[in-house]
Amino acid sequence: MGRQKMFGCGAVAQLVLSGGSHGMFLTVNFAFGFAAMLGILVCGQISGGHLNPAVTFAMCLLGREPWRKFPMYFLFQTIGAYFGAAIIFGMYYDALWDIPGSFNVTGPRATAGIFATYPGKHLTLVNGFFDQIIGTAALIVCILAIVDPHNNPIPQGLEAFTVGFVVLVIGLSMGFNSGYAVNPARDLGPRIFTAMAGWGSEVFTVRNGWFLVPVFAPFIGTIVGVIIYQVMVGFHTEGEYRDQKRSTEENVRLTNVDSNDKTNNTSKEHL
Amino acid sequence: MGRQKMFGCGAVAQLVLSGGSHGMFLTVNFAFGFAAMLGILVCGQISGGHLNPAVTFAMCLLGREPWRKFPMYFLFQTIGAYFGAAIIFGMYYDALWDIPGSFNVTGPRATAGIFATYPGKHLTLVNGFFDQIIGTAALIVCILAIVDPHNNPIPQGLEAFTVGFVVLVIGLSMGFNSGYAVNPARDLGPRIFTAMAGWGSEVFTVRNGWFLVPVFAPFIGTIVGVIIYQVMVGFHTEGEYRDQKRSTEENVRLTNVDSNDKTNNTSKEHL
Amino acid sequence: MGRQKMFGCGAVAQLVLSGGSHGMFLTVNFAFGFAAMLGILVCGQISGGHLNPAVTFAMCLLGREPWRKFPMYFLFQTIGAYFGAAIIFGMYYDALWDIPGSFNVTGPRATAGIFATYPGKHLTLVNGFFDQIIGTAALIVCILAIVDPHNNPIPQGLEAFTVGFVVLVIGLSMGFNSGYAVNPARDLGPRIFTAMAGWGSEVFTVRNGWFLVPVFAPFIGTIVGVIIYQVMVGFHTEGEYRDQKRSTEENVRLTNVDSNDKTNNTSKEHL
Amino acid sequence: MGRQKMFGCGAVAQLVLSGGSHGMFLTVNFAFGFAAMLGILVCGQISGGHLNPAVTFAMCLLGREPWRKFPMYFLFQTIGAYFGAAIIFGMYYDALWDIPGSFNVTGPRATAGIFATYPGKHLTLVNGFFDQIIGTAALIVCILAIVDPHNNPIPQGLEAFTVGFVVLVIGLSMGFNSGYAVNPARDLGPRIFTAMAGWGSEVFTVRNGWFLVPVFAPFIGTIVGVIIYQVMVGFHTEGEYRDQKRSTEENVRLTNVDSNDKTNNTSKEHL
Repeated sequence: MGRQKMFGCGAVAQLVLSGGSHGMFLTVNFAFGFAAMLGILVCGQISGGHLNPAVTFAMCLLGREPWRKFPMYFLFQTIGAYFGAAIIFGMYYDALWDIPGSFNVTGPRATAGIFATYPGKHLTLVNGFFDQIIGTAALIVCILAIVDPHNNPIPQGLEAFTVGFVVLVIGLSMGFNSGYAVNPARDLGPRIFTAMAGWGSEVFTVRNGWFLVPVFAPFIGTIVGVIIYQVMVGFHTEGEYRDQKRSTEENVRLTNVDSNDKTNNTSKEHL
Repeated sequence: MGRQKMFGCGAVAQLVLSGGSHGMFLTVNFAFGFAAMLGILVCGQISGGHLNPAVTFAMCLLGREPWRKFPMYFLFQTIGAYFGAAIIFGMYYDALWDIPGSFNVTGPRATAGIFATYPGKHLTLVNGFFDQIIGTAALIVCILAIVDPHNNPIPQGLEAFTVGFVVLVIGLSMGFNSGYAVNPARDLGPRIFTAMAGWGSEVFTVRNGWFLVPVFAPFIGTIVGVIIYQVMVGFHTEGEYRDQKRSTEENVRLTNVDSNDKTNNTSKEHL
Repeated sequence: MGRQKMFGCGAVAQLVLSGGSHGMFLTVNFAFGFAAMLGILVCGQISGGHLNPAVTFAMCLLGREPWRKFPMYFLFQTIGAYFGAAIIFGMYYDALWDIPGSFNVTGPRATAGIFATYPGKHLTLVNGFFDQIIGTAALIVCILAIVDPHNNPIPQGLEAFTVGFVVLVIGLSMGFNSGYAVNPARDLGPRIFTAMAGWGSEVFTVRNGWFLVPVFAPFIGTIVGVIIYQVMVGFHTEGEYRDQKRSTEENVRLTNVDSNDKTNNTSKEHL
Repeated sequence: MGRQKMFGCGAVAQLVLSGGSHGMFLTVNFAFGFAAMLGILVCGQISGGHLNPAVTFAMCLLGREPWRKFPMYFLFQTIGAYFGAAIIFGMYYDALWDIPGSFNVTGPRATAGIFATYPGKHLTLVNGFFDQIIGTAALIVCILAIVDPHNNPIPQGLEAFTVGFVVLVIGLSMGFNSGYAVNPARDLGPRIFTAMAGWGSEVFTVRNGWFLVPVFAPFIGTIVGVIIYQVMVGFHTEGEYRDQKRSTEENVRLTNVDSNDKTNNTSKEHL
């Protein structure tokens, strides 16, 4: 049921997400941040705003979503990103042909980076892996803090804005190395599209199989992020919540005892 | 209604007049996005924030506004944009005369693009048409999601901010081809003004009648956007809403039956 | 009573306001916009956020503030801006001496523009006057729409944010001509300071007495803005509000009559 | 606690590593501002959002936090910033080695400024001290205004956003001299890290012991800020609040007297 809608949502979100590649650095960050926000706003009701398999993974890890949903979400998120890339390809078809050598994966005129992420010249695979783990862990900690009902509450309806700012900040501070994918679907879907649309298999083989890094590292980053959040914030506030609940329950019990006593008293009076 | 036009044009004016050095790409996007926001805030009460004939068209398609309102809205939106362009023309009158050949429609010093949109050198008419359809469809899907009461609710009074961000994101991600008009009035009104103010009939004839694209393509994009929204979000949430309503009604009926029974019982007791 | 505080507020607000002059164009706009927001947030309780004599003037015109308050507000707003400029001067004292010819009013190394506004080379006095009128009118229309309780309501506490965005948009779209003073105090106070701090009387005499434009034009712009708002929005929504109030009153009257009838009936029944 | 550090540093890292071309001035300011916001959102529940020893110091001065908490907060804030710097160092390890002479503290290719602040070439120690005092005082005045319940109220949950904007504005308007530390922990922790990671003791000795300025000046700025706020806003609004409270109490007393009278009357009637 949620399938077609998920695809539609993913397409709209990624449509906006994948654009903006010719603007300057800040432009791209803004577009990505606000597009994440809009994607969550539009899809909010249907899929809980899951545009990122790493976020879905975190929700499964924490037991808030069943594990069986994860593969389907991942598949449709990737398909959504694939079609988002296709729409962007159509929109900028003339512009792409206008650039000499525009279907290159590497070199100064490479355009493959419009659709998927490629590492900077200085980056090794190990450092890139570390980079994706840290970026995703930061994203997950922030998202968990935002959706955590026991933490500092955000006004109802502003969660989407806040997640947008998170993506913006991560892009501003961590985008230099490899373009902060921090989203396996957002990277894999458009990469498959570019492989089919004329860039060829080089999109997979370039830089010793770099494409595997943004697919696998974010999930490790998610595990790191969930652990950090649980240690730092989660246990603490859940503990407070439990304490609060327990004391409420005790109050209720005491009140019940009290009312039982009263009842007894009343009964006795009736006797 | 011309307020958005005024701010937005001012930003474009700076971009072109300052030789692209003082007003960069981002400036223009911010000005348009926030200007849309302010326009909606100021006009909110009067016209329901309709600054864009494409949005009015979507409301008519969905039956939320009567069709007879559409031509008048379109006319006054265009007139508003015309006067907005006139005010900007007055403000930057000295600056315009300061540039040699500033009343050209084409060429490196062309200033007609301050007021209306013109396609990039690489863009064909077909691709430009597609570009305007996609941009308007994205705008419409986002606006319908924002004003949809059954979807993820936005805090009362923040709709204007969100629409401003939508326009900002669309500009950031899709403005490269032809300056994202996505608003027939915002393009046609100022174009008529420039034709009268000294740029001449070339503003209509240039690029094989490009001016027709931002006038007609947005309406096709609106139809696409309304269909996408209805298929992926609208029917779904409306269905949920209906289910909810029906179950409430049934509860009410059951309660009534229950109270009827009680009444009967009471009556019987009275007998 | 409100004196010292007003001065303090003005100083803090203008302190941040006057800075940022070495960043790029967008930086300045952001700093001004957000600084206006913060100034209103900090001073909110005390002076109703009057940082701008033009806004105070509009409130007097509309009868929301007594006219006798206006000269005192203007004086202390100017003194606040004067001391704000002094603090900025102290902060950047080393940087100012580091620039050769830094105490020039004109020329490529002129620094007087850090503190007060000066017209662009292309600008005539007449066009500059028109520019300030339009800019202030736009500011006043937006501020009146934001603080108008009958218009589209903004969530309590977000007025400051919205005014900040208004200043940002005006700066982005209209700042090219002469640096969008749209605030006589913000321009006059720092200009007096620079005259005393080493730039000399040239700050007043340059460009045929340009300094009078940002002092007088904003008030004319305020009158224009108030008229536009009243014609466009104010009368309309006030009318609606009056209609609503009247119908409520009539309902109350009808209900009273109805209940009188009932009472009569009841009385009759008692008879 | 190190989260703000991490994002902020990342932005500075990009600025320096990319030779100032990819991360411009605005990028850094945005990252710091929004990172402060996110840090407060994430840590809100645990430490009340104390990311800055200067803010903790202000809370102690005002008697809202006990003084015994201050040293521990300062220690852990510094440790957090230390580890934030370590993570950024790991993330950009390849990029750092890619630059010849990248472990220099001074010179055109110096990278120590990614982690801690260093004064601009023009800045003397005295002016730098003044700069940090003013910057921190402005921060403290704004934060006190935001968290002050008697002042203009900000919607619940938006405090974090507003503090983020404050940091952004201060950065935009005051970052020119020495990079606006306005936070002793944010400066000292990463500086200790760089001393250990390869930059050596020069990070402490450079510019006649500059490192002491961002450690001590912010506390003096905090005292200045607290005094300014109390004089201009605090006493005033607290007085109003006290007046209001007193009148409420008197009403209550009067009501009590009244009800006592009634009780008496009732008693009398019973007699």
